[in-house]
Amino acid sequence: MRETNSLNRSYAGQGLESKAVAASYSAIRQASEALCEPLEPEDCCIQSMPDVSPTKWHLAHTSWFFETFVLKPGLADYRSPNPLYEFLFNSYYNAVGEQYSRCRRGLLSRPTLSEVMAYRAHVDEAMDGLFAAGLASDLEQDLLAVIEMGIHHEQQHQELMLMDIKHVFYRNPLRPAYRELPESSQQEVAPLTWLPFNGDLQSIGHNGEGFAYDNEAPQHRAYVESFLIADRLITCSEYVEFIEDGGYERPELWLSDAWQIIQTRAWRAPLYWECEDDQWQIMTLGGMRDLDPSEPVCHVSFYEADAYARWMGCWLPRESVWETVARKLPIEGNFREQDCLHPTPLVYGTAGPAQMFGDVWEWTCSPYCAYPGYRARDGALGEYNGKFMCNQMVLRGGSCATPISHIRATYRNFFPPDARWPFTGIRLTKEG
Amino acid sequence: MRETNSLNRSYAGQGLESKAVAASYSAIRQASEALCEPLEPEDCCIQSMPDVSPTKWHLAHTSWFFETFVLKPGLADYRSPNPLYEFLFNSYYNAVGEQYSRCRRGLLSRPTLSEVMAYRAHVDEAMDGLFAAGLASDLEQDLLAVIEMGIHHEQQHQELMLMDIKHVFYRNPLRPAYRELPESSQQEVAPLTWLPFNGDLQSIGHNGEGFAYDNEAPQHRAYVESFLIADRLITCSEYVEFIEDGGYERPELWLSDAWQIIQTRAWRAPLYWECEDDQWQIMTLGGMRDLDPSEPVCHVSFYEADAYARWMGCWLPRESVWETVARKLPIEGNFREQDCLHPTPLVYGTAGPAQMFGDVWEWTCSPYCAYPGYRARDGALGEYNGKFMCNQMVLRGGSCATPISHIRATYRNFFPPDARWPFTGIRLTKEG
Amino acid sequence: MRETNSLNRSYAGQGLESKAVAASYSAIRQASEALCEPLEPEDCCIQSMPDVSPTKWHLAHTSWFFETFVLKPGLADYRSPNPLYEFLFNSYYNAVGEQYSRCRRGLLSRPTLSEVMAYRAHVDEAMDGLFAAGLASDLEQDLLAVIEMGIHHEQQHQELMLMDIKHVFYRNPLRPAYRELPESSQQEVAPLTWLPFNGDLQSIGHNGEGFAYDNEAPQHRAYVESFLIADRLITCSEYVEFIEDGGYERPELWLSDAWQIIQTRAWRAPLYWECEDDQWQIMTLGGMRDLDPSEPVCHVSFYEADAYARWMGCWLPRESVWETVARKLPIEGNFREQDCLHPTPLVYGTAGPAQMFGDVWEWTCSPYCAYPGYRARDGALGEYNGKFMCNQMVLRGGSCATPISHIRATYRNFFPPDARWPFTGIRLTKEG
Amino acid sequence: MRETNSLNRSYAGQGLESKAVAASYSAIRQASEALCEPLEPEDCCIQSMPDVSPTKWHLAHTSWFFETFVLKPGLADYRSPNPLYEFLFNSYYNAVGEQYSRCRRGLLSRPTLSEVMAYRAHVDEAMDGLFAAGLASDLEQDLLAVIEMGIHHEQQHQELMLMDIKHVFYRNPLRPAYRELPESSQQEVAPLTWLPFNGDLQSIGHNGEGFAYDNEAPQHRAYVESFLIADRLITCSEYVEFIEDGGYERPELWLSDAWQIIQTRAWRAPLYWECEDDQWQIMTLGGMRDLDPSEPVCHVSFYEADAYARWMGCWLPRESVWETVARKLPIEGNFREQDCLHPTPLVYGTAGPAQMFGDVWEWTCSPYCAYPGYRARDGALGEYNGKFMCNQMVLRGGSCATPISHIRATYRNFFPPDARWPFTGIRLTKEG
Repeated sequence: MRETNSLNRSYAGQGLESKAVAASYSAIRQASEALCEPLEPEDCCIQSMPDVSPTKWHLAHTSWFFETFVLKPGLADYRSPNPLYEFLFNSYYNAVGEQYSRCRRGLLSRPTLSEVMAYRAHVDEAMDGLFAAGLASDLEQDLLAVIEMGIHHEQQHQELMLMDIKHVFYRNPLRPAYRELPESSQQEVAPLTWLPFNGDLQSIGHNGEGFAYDNEAPQHRAYVESFLIADRLITCSEYVEFIEDGGYERPELWLSDAWQIIQTRAWRAPLYWECEDDQWQIMTLGGMRDLDPSEPVCHVSFYEADAYARWMGCWLPRESVWETVARKLPIEGNFREQDCLHPTPLVYGTAGPAQMFGDVWEWTCSPYCAYPGYRARDGALGEYNGKFMCNQMVLRGGSCATPISHIRATYRNFFPPDARWPFTGIRLTKEG
Repeated sequence: MRETNSLNRSYAGQGLESKAVAASYSAIRQASEALCEPLEPEDCCIQSMPDVSPTKWHLAHTSWFFETFVLKPGLADYRSPNPLYEFLFNSYYNAVGEQYSRCRRGLLSRPTLSEVMAYRAHVDEAMDGLFAAGLASDLEQDLLAVIEMGIHHEQQHQELMLMDIKHVFYRNPLRPAYRELPESSQQEVAPLTWLPFNGDLQSIGHNGEGFAYDNEAPQHRAYVESFLIADRLITCSEYVEFIEDGGYERPELWLSDAWQIIQTRAWRAPLYWECEDDQWQIMTLGGMRDLDPSEPVCHVSFYEADAYARWMGCWLPRESVWETVARKLPIEGNFREQDCLHPTPLVYGTAGPAQMFGDVWEWTCSPYCAYPGYRARDGALGEYNGKFMCNQMVLRGGSCATPISHIRATYRNFFPPDARWPFTGIRLTKEG
Repeated sequence: MRETNSLNRSYAGQGLESKAVAASYSAIRQASEALCEPLEPEDCCIQSMPDVSPTKWHLAHTSWFFETFVLKPGLADYRSPNPLYEFLFNSYYNAVGEQYSRCRRGLLSRPTLSEVMAYRAHVDEAMDGLFAAGLASDLEQDLLAVIEMGIHHEQQHQELMLMDIKHVFYRNPLRPAYRELPESSQQEVAPLTWLPFNGDLQSIGHNGEGFAYDNEAPQHRAYVESFLIADRLITCSEYVEFIEDGGYERPELWLSDAWQIIQTRAWRAPLYWECEDDQWQIMTLGGMRDLDPSEPVCHVSFYEADAYARWMGCWLPRESVWETVARKLPIEGNFREQDCLHPTPLVYGTAGPAQMFGDVWEWTCSPYCAYPGYRARDGALGEYNGKFMCNQMVLRGGSCATPISHIRATYRNFFPPDARWPFTGIRLTKEG
Repeated sequence: MRETNSLNRSYAGQGLESKAVAASYSAIRQASEALCEPLEPEDCCIQSMPDVSPTKWHLAHTSWFFETFVLKPGLADYRSPNPLYEFLFNSYYNAVGEQYSRCRRGLLSRPTLSEVMAYRAHVDEAMDGLFAAGLASDLEQDLLAVIEMGIHHEQQHQELMLMDIKHVFYRNPLRPAYRELPESSQQEVAPLTWLPFNGDLQSIGHNGEGFAYDNEAPQHRAYVESFLIADRLITCSEYVEFIEDGGYERPELWLSDAWQIIQTRAWRAPLYWECEDDQWQIMTLGGMRDLDPSEPVCHVSFYEADAYARWMGCWLPRESVWETVARKLPIEGNFREQDCLHPTPLVYGTAGPAQMFGDVWEWTCSPYCAYPGYRARDGALGEYNGKFMCNQMVLRGGSCATPISHIRATYRNFFPPDARWPFTGIRLTKEG
């Protein structure tokens, strides 16, 4: 995908170049809209649970981000199409002002999808003006840095759009498909192999070159004990063994909170799994289809990943362990650019740790915390990451719904331990 | 409006005539669709609270009604466009089968509005076929009676569509208008006058001529003590006095349940009222505008109507009292056909009890119960009314959103005592 | 029981006599305390659901009633043992002041039971002083009337104490007994017989002689259509047939609200019934024992009584129907004075309508409303009955936990339609 | 207090000696009962919120622990006084069986306090028998180790009893005192001083000598960056400054979850604080009294501790930081043995880090997780700690309600971030 490369080029020199950023901006904005092409206006309105936002809201909020943090401070005469948009499309920035209640985003028929698209065009036009002016004088690095962050921010919302629409369609008894997906091609998957690493003091976190979120910094030392790591992700077939061994009925496998939740919510399989006549069916962005046992298990909560690990006598990796392994590997895998929109089986014979990037976000056993010496950004953008450092778990590596340019070995995603609607999966470790 | 007259014509003879019913059917179906013309597809998706259904759902459910109770039993080769519609658009008929959860109607983007319109066309075409066949042989009276009921049913949903979209737009901070409404024309309203009636044994309920719901029968005797009834509805200006006298802060004016509810929900005025700079604003189907003090107060719950009556040292009328007065009056007033879509002030100088029909549904102090000797219809249609005879209050007279042909002096509407989104208002009585 | 007779004697003349009222007062107060004798201090603390109050609270609240409505207005130098008792033991009288939250009554370890008993003694001593002074001058009729009401009020709480402790013990897996009860003696019960009554205009309500609550007045005319009434209560054996016929699984038998509730709460039998090895066990105040099929079914909600009636093709009686039958009968039956504390089988061969009084409160199909011309008492005591006239159903006739002197043919008890912890049962009617 | 010393003596040799353990057992059991002496039977029944258990339940559950894990496996002929106690007093051990619902512990009047005391005596007698037999042969080390764990377990419940009864009395508007406490003696507190530590690789966790819970092991390496640590706890006076600076109204100081919670629960000060006429009052185990500004702030949640730290531009210590400092210090401070039952002001002039042990549990910024290589105990006792390693934060150092013999530098207490009823306070760190 084009946007990726152009964004990367912008880091060629010391600082950001207006031209490269402008190109990335344009590519990212088009990519968001391209994601909506298979959808009807009604699809873009629905909030199927509080965590889900309507497609329309994502499209508007990502525009609001540029309006609020770039256009309003950067363009003296900028005017929003509607002063209430500041309130409606503010996600959680208290420093910007009050926010429309998150759980009510699905109650808004207006602005309609076409009004939201007009809002996007309005913002894009103003951004074009800004870039055009900037290309002469070159824009200030500070403003460029915020635009760059806005670009990464919009990539995150692209993944959310896919996660959310999958959930919306799943909740509808008609089970619509987002679009046609490639057929699943069952593979024979090699047995799990354990790769050893020796204990050592490691440097963890982002070293400052290129873009990173504030939560990846500062780089710091951490002692990582010896460990073994699984060479690939856990497959559906392996997870079915856990289910068939009574995994969901055995309290000794579950954290206390987890056991409560699986009772209350009657969880007996990953999200999107349904058993009909002894055959597992799953919901995909292409609609319902038979489970492919060879593909990585997906849409498990941390609680389920942790119970699976315990059942195996293993652990989920700490994030320092995961990063120690990942930073030596090239960033390649089943990302959104592959256009599968679903995790795919590992092709037989791959050497070394495989599937570390792409396919599914990998739950770690690390709660999402500040690194030692962490400083949130100043101002409203300081609310981007820091204030969520509680009651969430870190995930690593990106998924089949993540743009490849969005991912780094140091990238820290985070979700509450009961979240299942992201594309999440399981990699195991053991003591070395 | 055409549909009214043609429907009434069908009662000319002893039984129902296929041709008249077919004409009514066609008129009613078009009227429902005409109500949607001002709406965008997104507007038709939204469920702003559990009591509200999306416009789209109303359009589909009223079609489902004819499909389920007329076409499936009446046409051997009838096929629904989608077998899941039976489940999705069943409101509450347990005898038909399981129902999609009421409070999740707003989570369905599919079928889209245009798919629902295609469903309507599909049903209409089949109904046309039925009528065409029936006009030769004349349809059985039983089937015609069910069609007639379906027509009245769809009229009820037309009112619900207006109630519901008003709520949807109110919950949106942008406060869209459904369409332009006539300006409010403040009137000077004459002081309330009390009209006396002498106590007597009365015949209450429907006598069996023409259409009526089962809950209006059987006609029976009830002793009605002497009473005085107010000659008009309570106005906004009168209700403002109640508010300004601390009506919402004085527990002695409220039923015990009511007092809990106004605390919990922080009610301090009718629904759709907002006070800004000491000026009351209200939401109408034409958007927000200044309160017209001379118009009837609307969107009060039974609890508020009852508290207002107690504050005045009066009562709300029993339904037998209301019917005793109403059955001598012609059915005329501010109905949907007037196209105001809002209650209007009483023109000065009207004699006799005014505004009994139209403008606002009048809360009675009568809980919704079976009349002595009541029999619900047989079969699934017996669920239409009877199973709701608990925890609801009777309302009488129709509103500015009711088709005039839908109303009779014996007509019993019902809502829970905390409902405020219907067009509901207040008429007082006193002991004679 | 003594209190009964002495209270009745007080109505011998035109007005109330201090001496008779004093004797009744003393008897009632002792009776409340006698009810606690089988209980441990811990038993008196527990609130097993929001509707239940701890025994201790009943003992204190009934004292608070005399303190608030008699001693504070009647004795210039009266002092409460603790000024916070006014707040803690006010049930729902807004005119008196704020109330401690009802659902938190079980969170109070203090005052302890012995402190509450000291509070009772304190109030009794002050009442004795009042009576002593009054016996010289004779107390004002107004004050005597309030004392009389307080006596009836305390009788109501005696029944509540028994209802509540039964629930408290049932919720405890140890299932303690309140005290030993007489063995159940299975009877053969004669088939149900239908007694006819002709339709006529009836006088309903209390005629003003002797004590009555305000909700029984005024006496007024009501037309009662011809009807048949069952000669006895429905038995457990008859109710078991309903269960075995799938009564709880057939939506067509249930009101809409009822159907929701029996799903949500998983009701499959009356409260206190448990099925073990195909044998019904029930909780009584004597602990768990086998169900006696010949005893009247008890602890059903209105919803269940109504569903049972529908299953039988019958109705529950309107309250005017019930009163028409009952006012010709002597007040006798299985009341608290019989000391069974449980409904008992009808002895074979009784003629005429039996079990109308005592055994179980009989659900009527009448929502609890004001009679035409109803006036609540002035002042805080006006909150006693009137403000509850919404969302409740009328019950008639008293139960095995009601003092016999508490009951009249015009007596209107009321509970919400889902209440099951009172001693409630079923009598049927049919159209005549 | 005696129990401490005797318990410590048991570690003199390589293994545990029956005699020493028996002495500890006896001392601990008596200490639990001594804590109840100021209480009435009613006090011991109350559950003022789901987290709180009735005193009676603690007394029974700690006995159940010995019954379940020592007597049943260790004494062939042991019989429980009531087989249902296994169910009623099981806290959360799924491997033992079903548990009575935690949030319903306050609904049990039976067993009464005296029955619970009889249960304790029954268990103690059996334990005496076991010890007596064991002193001849010397008991197996495994069983002794479980008894030792039961002793530490009972110490934890002693602290819970004090926490819980404080909450019970606070929720009662009468605000009873548990017992008389020493007067608060306001001190002048020296300004906060920062003590530096150099970054280094540290050994963290328990080294295996003497008793420790499984969650303190294994000892492992962790790199601790340079830091400064406050030489004392934050005082009430310092916390009042935070409140007066609008601390509770400034979203930028709070974690996102925290900001939701302080809105929803209307938190504006620590638990047990009330402002009356501009004077802070606090609830203590001695009842309400004026706030002493010089005493350590107590009863703050992690959320409040974290917000305070952010307001100060500081951090809460990681647990590795805290342990690095603490393990060089003697274990001394304001523990339960001081009998203050409330944190006390620091006496002027103390050198080095003060108040590290006792007074209040110190919130760390470390989520409660497994140490690398952690293994839960086998069997049911493996549920003691491990299954709670999610959504909780670690606290260190013990409090004025903790027995001194219960605490170690490696001791890891844990509570959810919104818990305020433990004796919790604040110590700050900064980057070095």
